[in-house]
Amino acid sequence: MEILVPMDSRSGKPLYEQIYEHIRREIRNGGLKTSDRLPSTRALAEHLKVSRSTTQMAYEQLLAEGYLEAVPCRGYFVAKLEELLEVEVRGNGEMRMEKKEPMSSGPLGMIDFSPWGIDLDSFPFHVWRKLSRNTLVDDNKEYFHSGDPQGEPGFREAIRRYLHSARGVNCTSDQIVIGAGSEYLLMLLSQILGRGHRIAMENPTYKQAYRVLTSLGYPVCPVEMDGAGMSVKRLTRTRADVAYVMPSHQFPTGIVMPVGRRQELLKWALDAERGQERYLIEDDYDSEFRYKGKPIPALQGMDRSGHVIYLGTFSKAVAPAIRVSYVVLPVRLLDRYKKQAGFYASTVSRIDQNILYQFLEQGHFERHLNRMRGIYKAKHDAFLNEAKLLEKDFQISGEYAGLHILLTDRRGRTEAELIEKARQAGVKVYGLSQYFIEEYQGRPATIVAGYARLSEEEILRGAELLRKGWGGNGW
Amino acid sequence: MEILVPMDSRSGKPLYEQIYEHIRREIRNGGLKTSDRLPSTRALAEHLKVSRSTTQMAYEQLLAEGYLEAVPCRGYFVAKLEELLEVEVRGNGEMRMEKKEPMSSGPLGMIDFSPWGIDLDSFPFHVWRKLSRNTLVDDNKEYFHSGDPQGEPGFREAIRRYLHSARGVNCTSDQIVIGAGSEYLLMLLSQILGRGHRIAMENPTYKQAYRVLTSLGYPVCPVEMDGAGMSVKRLTRTRADVAYVMPSHQFPTGIVMPVGRRQELLKWALDAERGQERYLIEDDYDSEFRYKGKPIPALQGMDRSGHVIYLGTFSKAVAPAIRVSYVVLPVRLLDRYKKQAGFYASTVSRIDQNILYQFLEQGHFERHLNRMRGIYKAKHDAFLNEAKLLEKDFQISGEYAGLHILLTDRRGRTEAELIEKARQAGVKVYGLSQYFIEEYQGRPATIVAGYARLSEEEILRGAELLRKGWGGNGW
Repeated sequence: MEILVPMDSRSGKPLYEQIYEHIRREIRNGGLKTSDRLPSTRALAEHLKVSRSTTQMAYEQLLAEGYLEAVPCRGYFVAKLEELLEVEVRGNGEMRMEKKEPMSSGPLGMIDFSPWGIDLDSFPFHVWRKLSRNTLVDDNKEYFHSGDPQGEPGFREAIRRYLHSARGVNCTSDQIVIGAGSEYLLMLLSQILGRGHRIAMENPTYKQAYRVLTSLGYPVCPVEMDGAGMSVKRLTRTRADVAYVMPSHQFPTGIVMPVGRRQELLKWALDAERGQERYLIEDDYDSEFRYKGKPIPALQGMDRSGHVIYLGTFSKAVAPAIRVSYVVLPVRLLDRYKKQAGFYASTVSRIDQNILYQFLEQGHFERHLNRMRGIYKAKHDAFLNEAKLLEKDFQISGEYAGLHILLTDRRGRTEAELIEKARQAGVKVYGLSQYFIEEYQGRPATIVAGYARLSEEEILRGAELLRKGWGGNGW
Repeated sequence: MEILVPMDSRSGKPLYEQIYEHIRREIRNGGLKTSDRLPSTRALAEHLKVSRSTTQMAYEQLLAEGYLEAVPCRGYFVAKLEELLEVEVRGNGEMRMEKKEPMSSGPLGMIDFSPWGIDLDSFPFHVWRKLSRNTLVDDNKEYFHSGDPQGEPGFREAIRRYLHSARGVNCTSDQIVIGAGSEYLLMLLSQILGRGHRIAMENPTYKQAYRVLTSLGYPVCPVEMDGAGMSVKRLTRTRADVAYVMPSHQFPTGIVMPVGRRQELLKWALDAERGQERYLIEDDYDSEFRYKGKPIPALQGMDRSGHVIYLGTFSKAVAPAIRVSYVVLPVRLLDRYKKQAGFYASTVSRIDQNILYQFLEQGHFERHLNRMRGIYKAKHDAFLNEAKLLEKDFQISGEYAGLHILLTDRRGRTEAELIEKARQAGVKVYGLSQYFIEEYQGRPATIVAGYARLSEEEILRGAELLRKGWGGNGW
């Protein structure tokens, strides 16, 4: 059998590749059929006026991919193939790195009181750049090899010290696991705890955690809060064995759980039935920002029996795109972690861990937090002053901490009405309802208004527009 | 009731904090009991000779944390608390960023033919540093906000183009999801596919994937391979509906699945029973390194019916610590991804995505791959030449690709024996047995010898030592 390969020495494509492609095409389109015998590499080379190594390379590639079979002492044959599936090319989407619009300049220049996002205007980019440069020197090439699955020991120790001094968390660095975001850590946690749990959550709550826990297959029981947070009586009635709480600053209500309720919760965790184990997942997502008094210590620090699983993150305090969070496991779960999830490689690069490690160790983190606390406090105070003019029509809550406040309507208006009136006035505000797992009938309308990404000027202008839009007598 | 607060104006601690701490301590140690009434802030201020705002701040903190209760018109009372849980401090581990020892200098200067790790000596640190600096400029602060959960669109498009041209993968950038490592992506995949699947894996296989799939709750069925990879007849018998395969370069055997077997597998995926859906997970972990002919195209490119889930990573080709992998989902799974897992925030920071994006777009990735292919080929050739001296005693396989070769004993020795003899000669080698999900009786001993992290000199010296240690007549 003779093969006519249309060769093009000007195409820039290696000759062996042209031969390989031609034969492959012939096999695919049926020109060459199963068991057809091909010329020897020598014969083909002579025929095509190419070197023998060229035809050898083409045949070897076809052999490697399974189009040909070599039979010792007999030669090369077309392999037996099922109906051939031709390669099709789809998709030619444009390339671009999408830059997100700053949130404050929404459609038509709306002022956006989004409860999400943070203020990055004061982020110490030059410091981050310097630390990143320091990490990426040739001597540090070990940072490019894989590291400790749990996170780098030194970095974990730095986090331990920070958590101890700033949050009153008591642990060893062995109890800390680093991960790329709290959602990932919840996935990992589900590998440790296993499936058979019912999880109670405050209602309203951080819906993202709710979505993650639900998607992991857990039945989630919403528990109504009173002024001190999750009601333990109601919690007990749900028969949940895990409670997900935000004691230091509940999202979105801003409720701070008093020490008494914390003790009740710890007692609940101890009161498990025989064969059962109860856990509290403490999500301490933004405890850094408090504008009155000292920070509220973490629940974990009160836990002597090892039932609190503590979750923290650098997303709020440093930057959302810095995907570094951590979980502090109680000692009783360490064995299970090592056995059931210890083999998961770290999801955070050692480079990023080292940058953040230096950021903590050299005091940049503390300085950054102090600066941001000052900036957020100024925004908070400006907004609160304006909001207070509204106290006849709205009850204010969640103030003096975090990055948003809540305004609860006293005049029987609906959430949709308030949002629409604000929108007409050029202001985007958000309703509390999106944070409920289960709605409560007859609940008055509440607006969640975030100020982190707005300038003080935008806050004042936004408040003025809201006054007009909502037309209350107080504004 | 009078409170004696030992004040220390030289301690550097704010006065309000000293008062707060003293009262908290008194409550905790029982000096102050439930329902005890505290002096008014005014009275305490006069008594302690401090300003009233100081005592107010202390009381507010105690109220916020729930130690005190304020009763309107009556004053402050110690709250009702359960048996008090004292905060204990544990752990004072030392701080350090552990640097891993280079693998080649093991205990006693052993030469380590580890199949893991890669050569980073030629890593373009200066390029990475420059790209990282370019990303971290103040103008790019948007990179610090959170991005697209699926990964940045421009980065996904760059990956799409790379996969299309280098691997023959056909997809749109919408089908690509970026994640921090393949293990995380398998977790995410399990959210998309759901629990009720049986997964078949090649035996031996990449044990880390086996561990992850098992820990995610899937029954995993090992399937024996022949020279063309996973036997489809045996696969069908397992009644698995998902098959995890490495068609282009099976780990650890190095088998390349020929096109005929690929078609059989695709046909298997189409032949699902009514109501069932079958998938092939193609793990294309290191297809970049092939030292003979062209790269073997991905199975995904042959799939016209949308049953292949393609997994790729930058860990081998760039650096293990760069935690960036990607999955290409078939179109039929996109809706499910968006509904069931689309809310998971990206686990890779936008900064890292942008650095890698520039690395790809500016041609650094291709240049780096070409350079590494040359370096690894030289190491491979050096090692293979030495190994060939051993062909009387060992059968060589898995050569011409990847970062290790396999040596299968012909003289009836055990794996343990070969490893121990090598160790005595000063060389660390690894057995194939650790990669089996299920062992096959009577299988001859096979050694897996990696050369990526060794210098050519170390390879030659190591081979010489092995010759002495194993004492075969061929060496």
